[in-house]
Amino acid sequence: MKRKQPGRCGVWLFGAHGGLATTIIVGATLAARDLVSRSGLLTETPPFDGLALAGLGSLVFGGHDVRETSVFDSAYEVYRANGTFDLEKLQAIHDDLNAVDDDIRTGTAFNCGATIRRMSNRKANRRPRRLRELIESIQQDILEFQERHDLERVVVVNVASTEPPLPPEPRFETLKGIESLLDENDARAVRASVLYGYAAADLGFPILNFTPNSGCLVPGVQVLARKRGAPFMGNDGKTGETLVKSALAPMFKYRNLKVLTWQGYNILGDRDGQVLADPENKRAKIETKDGVLSSILGYPLHTHVGIDYVPSLNDLKTAWDFIHFQGFCDYRMSLQFIWQGCDAILAAPIVLDMVRLAEFAQRNEERGLMTWLSCFFKSPVGVDEHDLHFQFQHLLDYVQSHLAGKTWPGSGRVAKTGKTFLPE
Amino acid sequence: MKRKQPGRCGVWLFGAHGGLATTIIVGATLAARDLVSRSGLLTETPPFDGLALAGLGSLVFGGHDVRETSVFDSAYEVYRANGTFDLEKLQAIHDDLNAVDDDIRTGTAFNCGATIRRMSNRKANRRPRRLRELIESIQQDILEFQERHDLERVVVVNVASTEPPLPPEPRFETLKGIESLLDENDARAVRASVLYGYAAADLGFPILNFTPNSGCLVPGVQVLARKRGAPFMGNDGKTGETLVKSALAPMFKYRNLKVLTWQGYNILGDRDGQVLADPENKRAKIETKDGVLSSILGYPLHTHVGIDYVPSLNDLKTAWDFIHFQGFCDYRMSLQFIWQGCDAILAAPIVLDMVRLAEFAQRNEERGLMTWLSCFFKSPVGVDEHDLHFQFQHLLDYVQSHLAGKTWPGSGRVAKTGKTFLPE
Amino acid sequence: MKRKQPGRCGVWLFGAHGGLATTIIVGATLAARDLVSRSGLLTETPPFDGLALAGLGSLVFGGHDVRETSVFDSAYEVYRANGTFDLEKLQAIHDDLNAVDDDIRTGTAFNCGATIRRMSNRKANRRPRRLRELIESIQQDILEFQERHDLERVVVVNVASTEPPLPPEPRFETLKGIESLLDENDARAVRASVLYGYAAADLGFPILNFTPNSGCLVPGVQVLARKRGAPFMGNDGKTGETLVKSALAPMFKYRNLKVLTWQGYNILGDRDGQVLADPENKRAKIETKDGVLSSILGYPLHTHVGIDYVPSLNDLKTAWDFIHFQGFCDYRMSLQFIWQGCDAILAAPIVLDMVRLAEFAQRNEERGLMTWLSCFFKSPVGVDEHDLHFQFQHLLDYVQSHLAGKTWPGSGRVAKTGKTFLPE
Amino acid sequence: MKRKQPGRCGVWLFGAHGGLATTIIVGATLAARDLVSRSGLLTETPPFDGLALAGLGSLVFGGHDVRETSVFDSAYEVYRANGTFDLEKLQAIHDDLNAVDDDIRTGTAFNCGATIRRMSNRKANRRPRRLRELIESIQQDILEFQERHDLERVVVVNVASTEPPLPPEPRFETLKGIESLLDENDARAVRASVLYGYAAADLGFPILNFTPNSGCLVPGVQVLARKRGAPFMGNDGKTGETLVKSALAPMFKYRNLKVLTWQGYNILGDRDGQVLADPENKRAKIETKDGVLSSILGYPLHTHVGIDYVPSLNDLKTAWDFIHFQGFCDYRMSLQFIWQGCDAILAAPIVLDMVRLAEFAQRNEERGLMTWLSCFFKSPVGVDEHDLHFQFQHLLDYVQSHLAGKTWPGSGRVAKTGKTFLPE
Repeated sequence: MKRKQPGRCGVWLFGAHGGLATTIIVGATLAARDLVSRSGLLTETPPFDGLALAGLGSLVFGGHDVRETSVFDSAYEVYRANGTFDLEKLQAIHDDLNAVDDDIRTGTAFNCGATIRRMSNRKANRRPRRLRELIESIQQDILEFQERHDLERVVVVNVASTEPPLPPEPRFETLKGIESLLDENDARAVRASVLYGYAAADLGFPILNFTPNSGCLVPGVQVLARKRGAPFMGNDGKTGETLVKSALAPMFKYRNLKVLTWQGYNILGDRDGQVLADPENKRAKIETKDGVLSSILGYPLHTHVGIDYVPSLNDLKTAWDFIHFQGFCDYRMSLQFIWQGCDAILAAPIVLDMVRLAEFAQRNEERGLMTWLSCFFKSPVGVDEHDLHFQFQHLLDYVQSHLAGKTWPGSGRVAKTGKTFLPE
Repeated sequence: MKRKQPGRCGVWLFGAHGGLATTIIVGATLAARDLVSRSGLLTETPPFDGLALAGLGSLVFGGHDVRETSVFDSAYEVYRANGTFDLEKLQAIHDDLNAVDDDIRTGTAFNCGATIRRMSNRKANRRPRRLRELIESIQQDILEFQERHDLERVVVVNVASTEPPLPPEPRFETLKGIESLLDENDARAVRASVLYGYAAADLGFPILNFTPNSGCLVPGVQVLARKRGAPFMGNDGKTGETLVKSALAPMFKYRNLKVLTWQGYNILGDRDGQVLADPENKRAKIETKDGVLSSILGYPLHTHVGIDYVPSLNDLKTAWDFIHFQGFCDYRMSLQFIWQGCDAILAAPIVLDMVRLAEFAQRNEERGLMTWLSCFFKSPVGVDEHDLHFQFQHLLDYVQSHLAGKTWPGSGRVAKTGKTFLPE
Repeated sequence: MKRKQPGRCGVWLFGAHGGLATTIIVGATLAARDLVSRSGLLTETPPFDGLALAGLGSLVFGGHDVRETSVFDSAYEVYRANGTFDLEKLQAIHDDLNAVDDDIRTGTAFNCGATIRRMSNRKANRRPRRLRELIESIQQDILEFQERHDLERVVVVNVASTEPPLPPEPRFETLKGIESLLDENDARAVRASVLYGYAAADLGFPILNFTPNSGCLVPGVQVLARKRGAPFMGNDGKTGETLVKSALAPMFKYRNLKVLTWQGYNILGDRDGQVLADPENKRAKIETKDGVLSSILGYPLHTHVGIDYVPSLNDLKTAWDFIHFQGFCDYRMSLQFIWQGCDAILAAPIVLDMVRLAEFAQRNEERGLMTWLSCFFKSPVGVDEHDLHFQFQHLLDYVQSHLAGKTWPGSGRVAKTGKTFLPE
Repeated sequence: MKRKQPGRCGVWLFGAHGGLATTIIVGATLAARDLVSRSGLLTETPPFDGLALAGLGSLVFGGHDVRETSVFDSAYEVYRANGTFDLEKLQAIHDDLNAVDDDIRTGTAFNCGATIRRMSNRKANRRPRRLRELIESIQQDILEFQERHDLERVVVVNVASTEPPLPPEPRFETLKGIESLLDENDARAVRASVLYGYAAADLGFPILNFTPNSGCLVPGVQVLARKRGAPFMGNDGKTGETLVKSALAPMFKYRNLKVLTWQGYNILGDRDGQVLADPENKRAKIETKDGVLSSILGYPLHTHVGIDYVPSLNDLKTAWDFIHFQGFCDYRMSLQFIWQGCDAILAAPIVLDMVRLAEFAQRNEERGLMTWLSCFFKSPVGVDEHDLHFQFQHLLDYVQSHLAGKTWPGSGRVAKTGKTFLPE
């Protein structure tokens, strides 16, 4: 079977001036120019050899943001706060970063809570006259980007700040519901994420929702995306404590060690921590963090994730987890872990991995849920399996199926079968 | 297919008065009488339902030891040192424990290093006139035990103290070599573990080597065991830090996070710690602990496991692991974990799990390496895969194959295939 | 100078059936009978030799509680939950513990929040007809206890559960204010702690407030206590994380290492944790935990203490503290600590230490604030110095002054002088 | 009393190209130019106001080293390895650093073990024809430095790598012994540190031995230094784990909590770690690390400090300490801490603090042991007190005595009195 080769691929980032988007742009540039190793990029490991993914150097970046700055200034700010980048290397790609500035447009912070509003510039906070107009303006920006750079495909990635959880709204469940909501211009019911998601889905562009803002991929948006031929996946990137959890929890199952308590405590600074310090926004985060454990272990347990804002840490997130478990003769023991990671550094490469795989999927005419990306998400849409090992195996199955020249059976709801994924 | 039902099953323990053997006997008794939950026993979880394993209450215990005491006194000593058992429950099974005393015979501490020698009574330290005689006397003890209790099968388990590593000895590689070594009565070449292993293999009894004493299952002994129809597996139970390692290391691979350093530090007290404080004996332990990581990760890394003796901890082993890794943009981060477990409590149930599975294997006329038990061992004989998740999957495959009424393809060397086990 | 010798000393415990009171009674009994060592009791160390403190065996226990049970049953419950006591030793003092039961009366849970109310029996929750009557009934119980046992002195100790913080109430500031409040029977303004404190002060009995319930020693009560000749001290025993903090924080000052963040996270179960899980009650606790650090370090810093309820831990409190600090060249480093202690085991001996020192103070006709006990409190009343080392030195100064036969200059407000305490 | 004002002060560093010396030079330059804060410098805190210490800007640096490089290159290397310095600030002082290069001369690695030898250049390894000549050449270098810069005083600081411990040698005990040893040219008996110490003492220059190489201040050298009017102090800077230990251990004493075990495990990379990975050199380090705890606690305990080389950490030393202690009712609890510090960043400012205080001492005609600097050393010569708080108090006493215009009683052996230092 003859496969299409990748062309130049656009990456449109909602939240393009945030620490994560900045790290994505800087890191991709550094790696493409071999100034840093390929560490962190899964798609650069042997199982992906021969898959003909888009080259790092063929990625073109643009996006929306609610704050005004330049990519280099953002990068320099990230460097000063976290020491993430090597300054000399950052200086070496100054021109490359400047080139991106023209492709970043003012986005919307519409209905995202007071903390985000305070960070945003006036235009971003403006209440849209009509929701439909706002959506069209978002689409206009993306299409101009595509045209300007003559891009075969554009993958749309949501890496904006955490919004407060969506209020329950039955109209989100269907495409018809959303259309009527937009027609009625019911501004209170939506947040920025819904508008972003609708805009991208309507264009038929692949969507990756790396945020916990579930508005981006509400069921009605999913229907639209499928209809327009877009592959998509979310929600909430699995980068730190939850990643460790989903790798470690199966061990307790393998030994019938009963987990009594899994208590986590996260501290982080940065704009991300500041947004999460707002209890309204924090709620969305904690909701996606629960559930993982009892799903893997198969029983309810005492579990809680505390999050606190510690400015001095910036993006160097530190998490302490205390796991209390009961073994033979009902004896109690414990495992603790301390995770010290830079969130953007952990997140950026898997966004790039997913961009490449989403571009690959669309090139291969796959549409709908990319369940094989579940290993990258805290709340993988349509996937009930949280065990990292099975999730990863599912991705390998997908890759090997393509490498073997087989047609992947397609996308669908994936059951928690304990062993295999069964795409419909 | 009609399967044989389990009869009463003997469990013969080398090191029957040690903390682990004591915990096995006490725990099995408590669990059989429902005085404690089945926590820690994997064979009591749903995947094993319907496999018709030997009931906990049908197990009969006996063994060899080099120290003289009673089972209850050992159990009381364990309770005082570690609080492992509930005193009131221990008192409730006093009579059951006393009943085991008659089945514990004086073993041999032959050539096991000065520290073990000091702990042993005179008879155990006696240098045998002829090795063949010593072996026969070991076999005599086991056979009398089987007859006395009218046991259909006896599983032999090595839970003795860690010996110094075996000196390189080409004659161990073949059965013929061992036979000539015994004929020549070359006492310097062997340690207790070799004699125990030979004795059990020659009887055709299933053998589980839970110790790092590789003498128990040298290639020549394996040949003998196969010949006599015995299934067997070892070496060195995977209970604590190494268990966590083999569960956690794959996570780094799934994200292409390059592990630069994995430094472990173990502290423990107890007779076990005391024996390991002897540098001669410690060496064997550290040898089985290395290798796991680079095998899983696929590249060499800086790794070391320090072990120190801390008397106040008794059997409550504490391990601190520091993992230094490199991610995107070559940024360095760390994960630390602190494991606080009671070794005997972690080890005892998996010995019982394996006893049941070994009895099951022999009942089903399987012989040779039980590779499906690899998830329980630090150095699984004949299995190159150290990833806990694959190891566990291999066990599930074995179980499901039996549950489906299929014949298991048999035992053989298992390659590191990244995905499945391929028994020859 | 001839000093009075101690007679038999009563110890009246508010919260007599709580885990802490139980540990005080059991521990004092075990230690008096030499069934355990004197570990944990500071007054048993050399600096206190020759001070003629009351013997452990001369202490007689009684108290109020809002729950009905027996001392032995409480002790057995503590043993089952935490393994704190040795069961065999507990059984050996069964009779001694039974003898205390007659001296425990129903107390009041008046106005202590819903969680405490749910734990209390009907009588304890009854809203008193008149506050004055309730106070008299409390006093009656204590005086009968003193008479029944012919006790020279009775030290009153508050070890009840944490109440919600007191509402601001100017009348607490003066004795006159409290009297008018009682005369007006203004039930909404007071909590149990105020009534207990008033009752004890009015009797002229030494008072130790080990709880964060500041009602026990509001200024008006202090005036009354001084007037009646009672020495007193509080608030909130310093037993775990805060103890470590006040020992460790000076180190940063000694090196001009600037502490940017000191983030603490406490998890605990037990009735104590359950009460603190009620946000209303938790507030009082957190309030006494803050302030310590900036007082020692001399500058404001980002600090927070999170507390969460983890039932499986019972009284084995675990705290993780993350300290982020800046050194030379503004470089940032960190220190973390993990404290795993049993709160009652840490608290009980210092209550006994203070009981002995309070009895000693009253015997030596000292009244008012016992500032020399500040090292035992999170919020030492009238003492601005939080540095554990200076606090301890202050206690030694007091002891050495008495040993040298000098008159202690008396009690008074103690300034934070950086070096010495200056009692007025 | 009229006091002399400080002039320009030389700082002569043995080990001038090491990470510590580099950090001293860079940090002093940055701080003098207000490019970084004064964090880490104790002498910049209020208690030292008014003491008229030498200004940071008045310090002039020079020294010996066995490796050839430039100060800027060393600094850049430190920056690349540890991120210790801000690159932009480092570039801003490039010229200042270059100016130091002319004052760094080739030193001697004489008899310092194979690992150090491998790092050294040929000249440094050359076996001296006569020891006396080598000493004179060292002195010549220092005197030329003093003259070239017209320095009133030169403080000599040993920050060279850890040597293997000195062999027992009775001749080191007296000045006469050392003289005869030098006369006999007995090269095997000495190491570089002895020659450095002798050279500086003979010049009458203040000596600070920041290394564990006790050769620098053997009794015979001390006699010589006193005779020539030099103040001096050592050995082995207290910067990390031991600092925490000496701050924390008193807490256990204050509560009569019996420490059963204090187990430490240090991992570090860098040239320092590499040298310590050589068992011969490691021994000296561990020797100075023990003793601290039992001295503070007053009883023997199980304690051990493990050190391992972890290249990926460079100078970011990580230490895990596990403290097992027994409280009331003989109940066992634990405290763990994890220290993550950059050794050079912790050490450099206290070297500068001591340089200023040593210059001050000599200016005030003090000679002999500067016991008031004991808080900065793991093995303070002539001081038996290891409690950090008393040590610090001793320094404050010294400072306050001077501020009050009193004559300090002079230097002498300091007993462990539990409270105050009593200089003879």
